[in-house]
Amino acid sequence: MVSPPTRYLVFFQYFGTKYSGVMETSNDQAVVGVQNYLEKAAQNLKPIVPIKFHISSRTDTGVHALCNSAHLDIQRAPGKPAFNEKQLIYSLNYHLKPEPIRILNAYRVTNSFHARFSALSRTYIYRLLMGCTHYSEIPVFEKDLCWAPAGGYLNVPAMQDAAQCLLGTHDFSTFRSLNSETPFQSPIRTVLQADIRPSSGFLSHHYEHRGLEFWELKFRSRSFLYRQVRRMVGALVAVGQGKLTPRHIKELLEIKDSRAFPPNAMAPPSGLFLKSVEY
Amino acid sequence: MVSPPTRYLVFFQYFGTKYSGVMETSNDQAVVGVQNYLEKAAQNLKPIVPIKFHISSRTDTGVHALCNSAHLDIQRAPGKPAFNEKQLIYSLNYHLKPEPIRILNAYRVTNSFHARFSALSRTYIYRLLMGCTHYSEIPVFEKDLCWAPAGGYLNVPAMQDAAQCLLGTHDFSTFRSLNSETPFQSPIRTVLQADIRPSSGFLSHHYEHRGLEFWELKFRSRSFLYRQVRRMVGALVAVGQGKLTPRHIKELLEIKDSRAFPPNAMAPPSGLFLKSVEY
Repeated sequence: MVSPPTRYLVFFQYFGTKYSGVMETSNDQAVVGVQNYLEKAAQNLKPIVPIKFHISSRTDTGVHALCNSAHLDIQRAPGKPAFNEKQLIYSLNYHLKPEPIRILNAYRVTNSFHARFSALSRTYIYRLLMGCTHYSEIPVFEKDLCWAPAGGYLNVPAMQDAAQCLLGTHDFSTFRSLNSETPFQSPIRTVLQADIRPSSGFLSHHYEHRGLEFWELKFRSRSFLYRQVRRMVGALVAVGQGKLTPRHIKELLEIKDSRAFPPNAMAPPSGLFLKSVEY
Repeated sequence: MVSPPTRYLVFFQYFGTKYSGVMETSNDQAVVGVQNYLEKAAQNLKPIVPIKFHISSRTDTGVHALCNSAHLDIQRAPGKPAFNEKQLIYSLNYHLKPEPIRILNAYRVTNSFHARFSALSRTYIYRLLMGCTHYSEIPVFEKDLCWAPAGGYLNVPAMQDAAQCLLGTHDFSTFRSLNSETPFQSPIRTVLQADIRPSSGFLSHHYEHRGLEFWELKFRSRSFLYRQVRRMVGALVAVGQGKLTPRHIKELLEIKDSRAFPPNAMAPPSGLFLKSVEY
């Protein structure tokens, strides 16, 4: 008799620079998704049905995750007991080893649990580096892990004012990029948190005198629209650069049209980290 | 009339994982030194004599530098003025761009200045990650940038006691690896600083609950013997693991024989950073 599949929720981390994003792509592309590597690693568990990862939170090419999540079902050969959580973590990581992708945790969950739809909220961090007058001043250890916007220092209090405008429930049409899902998705989202705080760089306590400042923007919402975080960050940075005012952020929200977003203002993927998915 | 060469002191940074070390190697090797890239970049300045970097502080394969230094002489074609410091930084970085190597600063110095012999001291940082029970628990962002010794947590107070034994002037013969320079170098060195302090990981304030702890060992001396820092760190970690006691560290110093160093105890290069060279 075939035993029923066992469902797991897994949390995982990745350095996104070398992937086309988290979602699976066809394997014949030059650069594939994190999911391709997860599913390839999972095939080593010898399931009787190929294992599919249902990713909770999409991230784009070059975006990182301190912690993303997914659920998966594992159906083993008759007579074989379900993997325990430690075995699952250990063997997936063993097969992922050459990649900058790591399983952090695994939990057995009921078969009605869905990593995407059961999530209560997502938290993203965006890392900014201020004080660089030129690209070459970015520390080599921060390459691909932050954004140093042109113009050096930013007006942080103005950015913090502007961030307040994004808090709460709004039609975020102006702050989404268009994709195939746009016609089917409500543009209404509730931003629960929008903070801007000083942060630190990798070993930056050893070179404070160079005048580099790391800042973090933190956003939490049940879900985000396509590229919403990068567009919000880009608009806030434009405020910090004096190109926009907090009042403009309110106006952009009121226009409710993605074409009204300032051209080329979207923040690059390198500074963006999915911090956590909350259940 | 040919103008005299101009001497510069430059400070530079590198992510050491992909290099054979800082020193130049023959260009036909699969992996070459940081110096090879520096000199290749400098050839774009069109000097009338090839530019040689005189590196202040040797670092091994896989060792990083927050800041190393070198001097170089630039002789330009007749009638061309000497580069100013900003031009030099900018154009070297322009040509280094694809590499994780960056010129941080440049200063014109007198022709008697020597980056290696004029240095008053060197400071190294060694990053330890405690709390990992398995290699796969190292965050993907810390890959190649720390050492997670087996055994999880270490006895830090014992390590701090042991570090005190290394302070001051000693014959460090047991703490050097042998190389071609060994017969010509005094094994006497004066360790001016040997600290062990809590540190932080890349974005580790976002995952404190995972029980990972970052620590930094800091060593300062006028100069160090070949692999002295990695051997001192390895011995201190052995103390932290309970394999050695602070008393053993004293005994190892007294033996004055590199063959007496515990086998396989040397710390790996990935956690080591040249922090600064002081003049």
